[in-house]
Amino acid sequence: MNGNYKVLWLNKNDELEVIDQQKLPFEYETKVLKTTDEVVVAIKDMTVRGAGVIGSVAAFGVFVACGEVESYDELKQKAKLIRDSRPTAVNLMWAVDKMMELLKDSKNLKADAKAHAIKLNDDEAKESQKIASCGADIIENILKQTGKKTINILTHCNAGWLAVIDEGTALAPIYEAKKRGIDVHVWVDETRPRNQGASLTAWELTQSEVKHTIIADNTGGHLMQNGMVDMVIVGADRVSANGDVANKIGTYLKALSAKDNNIPFYVAIPASTFDFNIKEGKDIPIELRSEDEVKHIKGVDEDGKVREVLITPKNAHAINYGFDVTPARLVTGIITNKGVCEADFEKIKERFRR
Amino acid sequence: MNGNYKVLWLNKNDELEVIDQQKLPFEYETKVLKTTDEVVVAIKDMTVRGAGVIGSVAAFGVFVACGEVESYDELKQKAKLIRDSRPTAVNLMWAVDKMMELLKDSKNLKADAKAHAIKLNDDEAKESQKIASCGADIIENILKQTGKKTINILTHCNAGWLAVIDEGTALAPIYEAKKRGIDVHVWVDETRPRNQGASLTAWELTQSEVKHTIIADNTGGHLMQNGMVDMVIVGADRVSANGDVANKIGTYLKALSAKDNNIPFYVAIPASTFDFNIKEGKDIPIELRSEDEVKHIKGVDEDGKVREVLITPKNAHAINYGFDVTPARLVTGIITNKGVCEADFEKIKERFRR
Repeated sequence: MNGNYKVLWLNKNDELEVIDQQKLPFEYETKVLKTTDEVVVAIKDMTVRGAGVIGSVAAFGVFVACGEVESYDELKQKAKLIRDSRPTAVNLMWAVDKMMELLKDSKNLKADAKAHAIKLNDDEAKESQKIASCGADIIENILKQTGKKTINILTHCNAGWLAVIDEGTALAPIYEAKKRGIDVHVWVDETRPRNQGASLTAWELTQSEVKHTIIADNTGGHLMQNGMVDMVIVGADRVSANGDVANKIGTYLKALSAKDNNIPFYVAIPASTFDFNIKEGKDIPIELRSEDEVKHIKGVDEDGKVREVLITPKNAHAINYGFDVTPARLVTGIITNKGVCEADFEKIKERFRR
Repeated sequence: MNGNYKVLWLNKNDELEVIDQQKLPFEYETKVLKTTDEVVVAIKDMTVRGAGVIGSVAAFGVFVACGEVESYDELKQKAKLIRDSRPTAVNLMWAVDKMMELLKDSKNLKADAKAHAIKLNDDEAKESQKIASCGADIIENILKQTGKKTINILTHCNAGWLAVIDEGTALAPIYEAKKRGIDVHVWVDETRPRNQGASLTAWELTQSEVKHTIIADNTGGHLMQNGMVDMVIVGADRVSANGDVANKIGTYLKALSAKDNNIPFYVAIPASTFDFNIKEGKDIPIELRSEDEVKHIKGVDEDGKVREVLITPKNAHAINYGFDVTPARLVTGIITNKGVCEADFEKIKERFRR
């Protein structure tokens, strides 16, 4: 990794441009988000996704919205649309609130919004670098403890540079470990129904030349039972004050299996992912998405054409919760930009409460 | 259910005809298996699948093989090909061994093989009916204990009449409960990578008018945490003498979650699924299948055409274990044709050792 990988930026016309993650891994395309509505749609339909990136897009979204309003009060209404676009990842709400707080007394909304969004983005990049180094220390320790040649790390969904500015959260320590010369191999959960693992993480790790193997989400337990996983690292969309972790649906099952097989299970997040307004994970709102995401899947046909196919009986009914909550008791540690923290209310409060 | 659903039969020319399960749920087609080689391929490529059905096809496969041989010794070689076609489901080996034992002194291989295969099939149907009634008693008890209007049952893969002769194993109690007037709803794990849940179980439950909802394999944990699952019933491909259960990959993760949420986890099998030659689950051979099954998926495109699409980066590497082992400690009970049994070595030996 060389910092060249960017998932969003202001282009030469000062417009917000993003990698269209709906098209990956089959096509690399970017999309310019010119209006608040376009920003909202891009977040909802997952053109941009990943807790951190949603936050960054939201911050720049407030900048975009500034072009559509005359006053701070009008901006508030636009900001609310962005803030409400998805319910689970707290970085979204945090970024919008932060921007609106910073802009409260602004005399020049647009210019100030741009500066603040860039600053937020830069801060997030620095946090990612700290997560990388702190997590790589853990990987290095496991290498020493186990004496293994290769460290096998299982991850769920995508929490790399496509998800969080700079090198991501869950994948950042892996990139850093590789830089330190550690032989790492990643088990990539395909992460149904949206397949962020098979499409985004696999693509991202290929770009970054990290060894990896895609597995069905069902497979991790078997690998863990058979000594084929040395640690698990995932990201998170929101962590409650007591350390319960809302992350992509299926994370909880992997955490149970890690516990059952004595495998360290780490969650990597920037401090902004903690939500002190929520005491326990059960109170984190869990997004219910369209059943169509379970019933249909996108792929490339024999002629190289990207197509969506129906993979269930036509009239079947499906249900599609986007996230689940992993109880703090299953979490070995939370890797943050301020070091590793136990998933424990007092410890988290002491270190992170703003 | 009315017993009209058949997954394999001898047609009017005395040929083995089966439902082509590779085509479901998009197309209903049957296939005639005229040679030992065709039987072997059909088992390997999952034209026929499901522990019980593989056993039945194998028994009839020995009958098919009889048309190609002059002696019992020649038949042995053909039988070995069938026996070796897949490694995990013990019913396959059991059925071939049983047929060969029965045919040892036969003066008329073909006629005798036909009679024995039909008898084995009929016996399995009777076992399925006993599993149905024994499992429905458990569902009825849960209904009484919980006082709920609807009993929500989660199942993984397909262990209905497409998998095991008559009404299946895991689904048989559900069909029987419905006949008894109990309001049942089934959470159908899609069961990646081959999607037996989304394609076969959903199709089968639709034919049988049982309420159901398809979920990504990642979803069961969240449902269990939120009181939306009253019990789990799965089938099995092999159960070791101590009660460890080899079943479709991912079963172990659901069992962990059931345990963590105090939800009864049942395994439904005919007695032939016990393997007393294997003491513990870790010694059950786990099939490693082609990575292509993870990388490609079949579905119907917008024009109604069945297509296979690539769902990962083109050069991605995947790994595809077919089964995992759920330790006996996670199993509430084993529903069999001889009643419910604890997943415990002594109890199993006492009741089932032949």
